[in-house]
Amino acid sequence: MPLVRISLRRGKAANYHSALCDGIYSAMRETFAVPEGDCFVLVHEHDEGTFFVDPDYLGIHRTEDTVIIQITCNDTRTVEQKKALYAAIAKNLGAAPGVKPGDVFINLVEVKPENWSFGNGLAPYAGK
Amino acid sequence: MPLVRISLRRGKAANYHSALCDGIYSAMRETFAVPEGDCFVLVHEHDEGTFFVDPDYLGIHRTEDTVIIQITCNDTRTVEQKKALYAAIAKNLGAAPGVKPGDVFINLVEVKPENWSFGNGLAPYAGK
Amino acid sequence: MPLVRISLRRGKAANYHSALCDGIYSAMRETFAVPEGDCFVLVHEHDEGTFFVDPDYLGIHRTEDTVIIQITCNDTRTVEQKKALYAAIAKNLGAAPGVKPGDVFINLVEVKPENWSFGNGLAPYAGK
Repeated sequence: MPLVRISLRRGKAANYHSALCDGIYSAMRETFAVPEGDCFVLVHEHDEGTFFVDPDYLGIHRTEDTVIIQITCNDTRTVEQKKALYAAIAKNLGAAPGVKPGDVFINLVEVKPENWSFGNGLAPYAGK
Repeated sequence: MPLVRISLRRGKAANYHSALCDGIYSAMRETFAVPEGDCFVLVHEHDEGTFFVDPDYLGIHRTEDTVIIQITCNDTRTVEQKKALYAAIAKNLGAAPGVKPGDVFINLVEVKPENWSFGNGLAPYAGK
Repeated sequence: MPLVRISLRRGKAANYHSALCDGIYSAMRETFAVPEGDCFVLVHEHDEGTFFVDPDYLGIHRTEDTVIIQITCNDTRTVEQKKALYAAIAKNLGAAPGVKPGDVFINLVEVKPENWSFGNGLAPYAGK
């Protein structure tokens, strides 16, 4: 059920994007109890002049390879799970496709379990 | 006030996109008490390798024509209204432009009524 | 920590986009107590037929230059601060790059402070 939006500058190869997808999905499996197959990821590539990121906010240095990850998910996780997710995503993306830790920006948007339909017009998580 | 983001693979004709817009707007009118004219829809077309959707999660088969619909709306609807919305969107998009029911993915993000400005720097729903 | 998504029709110059970014950031600094350097803005340019905006909803006239601004931010602001933000964004964008007040559409999505990682896999606002 998480819906993931990844925004980054245009110009990376397809396997770079799929590695981002794999790393985030694996991290959600490890720390957020996301079921197998629950992988829905949208990549937005940004042209020059449409991607604005402060290079040093909070003393963290960001490069041209900054990746903005916005994850919409159920409001069922603890603060500890969220911290574990951030650490796991940064670790995984560092391993592949090789994103620097400072370049991994993550934001969670939480919603109720009833707020999803995965097809067929049904709401499988309503009442959970 | 709903703000609708539709993500799908690139390559459909303009009337396909407008049919998606019409079908979602009609469904929101029918089930979410959305006022006439309250239609704000953004379509994001995704190139090959930037759109990742599990083909069978929850036993629902998804094709190359999967449509991801994320709707930001007020937190004023019941679970029954949400179920009715999902069913209405799937029904409408099946009629036109002809999306298979399994290919209709929907997510709602709920916000407070005060969280909207429709122009002129005003907040018409604040206090509602 | 606000993450800003700006959607508009394709065709504006780069300095138009940077002026939008500057005007929104300044407004957030003035009214939302956003720290210096906390500027993360994504611009989505929409091709013909992928941007649907009602031209007159709520009696506000919208043109081809409508700008849809969706801001994800912490759930720590008052209604008065939100009203001040809307007014400041409309004022600033009217000054530069010259957006008509009716063309400024704003939506806020609020999240918990723990829902952010700005890099290095850490959650600097957790516990705040």
